[in-house]
Amino acid sequence: MIHTYSKLCNFYRKINNFDNIASIIHWDMSTNIPKDSMKYRSEELATLQSMTHKLLISEQFGDLLSSVKKARLNDWQKANLNEMHNIRKNALAVETRLLEVHTKTAAECEMLWRQARKDNDFKSLIPVFRKVISITKDIGDSRGDYLGMSTYDALLDQYDPGRKSADINKIFSEITKFLPNLVNKIIEKQSKNNSKPLPNHKFPIAKQEELGRFIMKALGFNFDRGRLDVSTHPFCGGNPHDVRITTRYAENDFSSGLMGVVHETGHALYEQNLPADYIDQPVGKNLGMSIHESQSLLMEMQISRSKEFFEFITPKIVELFALDPREWSADRIYTSRTKVKKTLIRVDADEATYPLHVILRYNIEKELLTGNLQIRDLPAVWNDGMKSLLGVVPEKNSMGCMQDIHWYMGAFGYFPTYTLGALAAAQFYQALAREVKDHTQYIRKGDFKPITSWLHKNIHNQGRFYSADQLVKKVTGKNIEIAAYKKHIETRYL
Amino acid sequence: MIHTYSKLCNFYRKINNFDNIASIIHWDMSTNIPKDSMKYRSEELATLQSMTHKLLISEQFGDLLSSVKKARLNDWQKANLNEMHNIRKNALAVETRLLEVHTKTAAECEMLWRQARKDNDFKSLIPVFRKVISITKDIGDSRGDYLGMSTYDALLDQYDPGRKSADINKIFSEITKFLPNLVNKIIEKQSKNNSKPLPNHKFPIAKQEELGRFIMKALGFNFDRGRLDVSTHPFCGGNPHDVRITTRYAENDFSSGLMGVVHETGHALYEQNLPADYIDQPVGKNLGMSIHESQSLLMEMQISRSKEFFEFITPKIVELFALDPREWSADRIYTSRTKVKKTLIRVDADEATYPLHVILRYNIEKELLTGNLQIRDLPAVWNDGMKSLLGVVPEKNSMGCMQDIHWYMGAFGYFPTYTLGALAAAQFYQALAREVKDHTQYIRKGDFKPITSWLHKNIHNQGRFYSADQLVKKVTGKNIEIAAYKKHIETRYL
Repeated sequence: MIHTYSKLCNFYRKINNFDNIASIIHWDMSTNIPKDSMKYRSEELATLQSMTHKLLISEQFGDLLSSVKKARLNDWQKANLNEMHNIRKNALAVETRLLEVHTKTAAECEMLWRQARKDNDFKSLIPVFRKVISITKDIGDSRGDYLGMSTYDALLDQYDPGRKSADINKIFSEITKFLPNLVNKIIEKQSKNNSKPLPNHKFPIAKQEELGRFIMKALGFNFDRGRLDVSTHPFCGGNPHDVRITTRYAENDFSSGLMGVVHETGHALYEQNLPADYIDQPVGKNLGMSIHESQSLLMEMQISRSKEFFEFITPKIVELFALDPREWSADRIYTSRTKVKKTLIRVDADEATYPLHVILRYNIEKELLTGNLQIRDLPAVWNDGMKSLLGVVPEKNSMGCMQDIHWYMGAFGYFPTYTLGALAAAQFYQALAREVKDHTQYIRKGDFKPITSWLHKNIHNQGRFYSADQLVKKVTGKNIEIAAYKKHIETRYL
Repeated sequence: MIHTYSKLCNFYRKINNFDNIASIIHWDMSTNIPKDSMKYRSEELATLQSMTHKLLISEQFGDLLSSVKKARLNDWQKANLNEMHNIRKNALAVETRLLEVHTKTAAECEMLWRQARKDNDFKSLIPVFRKVISITKDIGDSRGDYLGMSTYDALLDQYDPGRKSADINKIFSEITKFLPNLVNKIIEKQSKNNSKPLPNHKFPIAKQEELGRFIMKALGFNFDRGRLDVSTHPFCGGNPHDVRITTRYAENDFSSGLMGVVHETGHALYEQNLPADYIDQPVGKNLGMSIHESQSLLMEMQISRSKEFFEFITPKIVELFALDPREWSADRIYTSRTKVKKTLIRVDADEATYPLHVILRYNIEKELLTGNLQIRDLPAVWNDGMKSLLGVVPEKNSMGCMQDIHWYMGAFGYFPTYTLGALAAAQFYQALAREVKDHTQYIRKGDFKPITSWLHKNIHNQGRFYSADQLVKKVTGKNIEIAAYKKHIETRYL
């Protein structure tokens, strides 16, 4: 019986090998690829992904799966078997052909979006965007029928397995009740703070990269199984054997590059510390985007936007860029990095206003899918939403409903994971703070080992042995909820 | 009927997509990969290659192939069909399992070789190298049986389709007759030249890269479908949609980086100018390593080691590195770059002594495969061969029989293509010189368009419509032979 199980694992390992190759190709497309090669690489990658899908829905995989008997397996093996059943079920829920059309349409739309955003020309996008929504809905319908859930939940489930929009509705409506007021209070309080702004300065890119590598090392990133590079939008790519993060540098501001590095290192530590014995098996994978985002935000927001973190890193910054330490004190850098503002662009938003950007997108994407919202009305609805949630309105669609790539590449159901991740990050950090005594002292010294060890043990090493909800409950004693996030924002900003 | 042919082409296009992905992964393994990720990536790549092999030997491919009738196809389509039959035949000649064992054993041996070469420890390599030879011989036997050729020819054929060792024997024995004497004469002549050596200087890497990109552009490299990077050994990788060349830089010598770039650009121009209509089909591919090497050597040796080339490039070099133009004249740089020496290392050898390095390896590898030469005797036989062909003997095996990666990664039959390429380069260039009037004037002006256009039209755009031998004959009027190479060496050096 164990023998059949081994066969099954070997079969899956092949699929995993293809996934790992796809992840490196994808990284290459974001960092290295020459401009005219993109369309060919997209097709090549799609061929590989179809082939993987065909393996997942193959009779061979099905036969192997049903021939394994659970009785002789240990708990991790049982969990692994369950995950494989899940993966196959998810694959069977959509025909390969439908996936291929989705990939092709999304790639076409994404390419047009890049140009249309530059030209601030939303109208030109409408025909192909309509196709993207329609095929995405088809996928949601197909998955929903097969898996017994609503269209939207079936899309959401791809990024955050097990998540239901009913729960999100509840959480997001609570946020909508308290957060706009809280943001106003913070802004009012900060407006009374009259500390001098930081002076202008040029920060050479090479030095910024050195700073990035320094902090990655301090946080425990393993450079023998990973890299740091540059891309337009920071991301964490590659696979657990070879985790590749990127950032972007601005010459007049070291902090955007640095925060990009810290955020992606949070993702990377998760990937690099998944359970080694199951690294090529489903149970050894991460728990989806909400938990992933909790790991990056815990690093970026809870830890590296703390006063203690700036006490640790400021001397290094002062030394690297040859700054005047009186002008560049830890306190002043902290103040400048924790400024709360109502702004137009999600990726530049602070941790207090960020959920409002997400809620806007969540409300809109559900309506786009049902067809209650016509595409031509999107700009107006977007601008109204911004006005009511954040009190600011973009002057052009390129700064409004065209700013994010997600919808135009057919990713609906992704946005909520950012905020669920922020909530989970606050909850995890609360638990960590209880259990790791003197955690602020460790941060101040730049000794992150006690903190990352806690994360490894409680989260990273757990792989998918538990579901996302089970893990949050096990570690924090509660489901994902707003209390810890609310408390964190109030404590830091009021 | 055309319809069946289209189906066949679409099927092949999938295989081609996988090959293209493999080529980018391979490039990544030589440029980017973190050290502990290598063993996983090797396995992942092997999985992909097995899968491609399975597609090539699949019944589906066979059925499609046999259902296409030639009558309605045009000449290029017929040639394409032939190539597909060939590819399938070649795939059927070896079992997937055997290829997998070869890949695995070779990867293991290559890893050990890297360490053993560092430690100058040939003995430690013997057990695994024996396995590599044995499995390589199995592949040669299997291919030979199926394709009706000798074991060695069956290996050679993988790199240079259609090449026979009988022809190589004849050519190499002619070279052995005249070249050692010619080399002695050149060395004697050069010893009487008492031009001052070039002064020492530091050449910043960033400026060297700028020089490399300048010459790539001048030669017509398309950066929208390709890249320049750095690796330990320069190579041309990627695929026709995305050609990626590498070089390496030495701070005290600009010319090794520059010549690496020029050589690889020769390869790249071939790949970037293969027939666009058949770029994803077998008939649109290059003709194998001999013709490929002819394109890189034509650029590196015939063109960019000419006096006219240095007249063109020297002002740029002087300007870039802020050199004293009296010390760094075109004439002195030319003299220093055309120095002939009997040395130990193939990759550093000049164009006059290079074939002798190749002949040594060719003679030895045949004997290793038959078992006439025992592995433990390899160092002694190597050193004897060096003594008799080049008059120099390495003090350590790391500078002798362990210097090249080829054998240790299971590549037997590859070495002769370097010299066949050098011969073909000389022949092609002779033809080019006849047909492109004033070609030396163009080089002097740095206007390479007339030269590269001739190469595109006569060689690159031809893909595999002709065989390698047919193409050489068509373009030069002769089979591959020594006359043009001999004349080139005599003209340049005596």
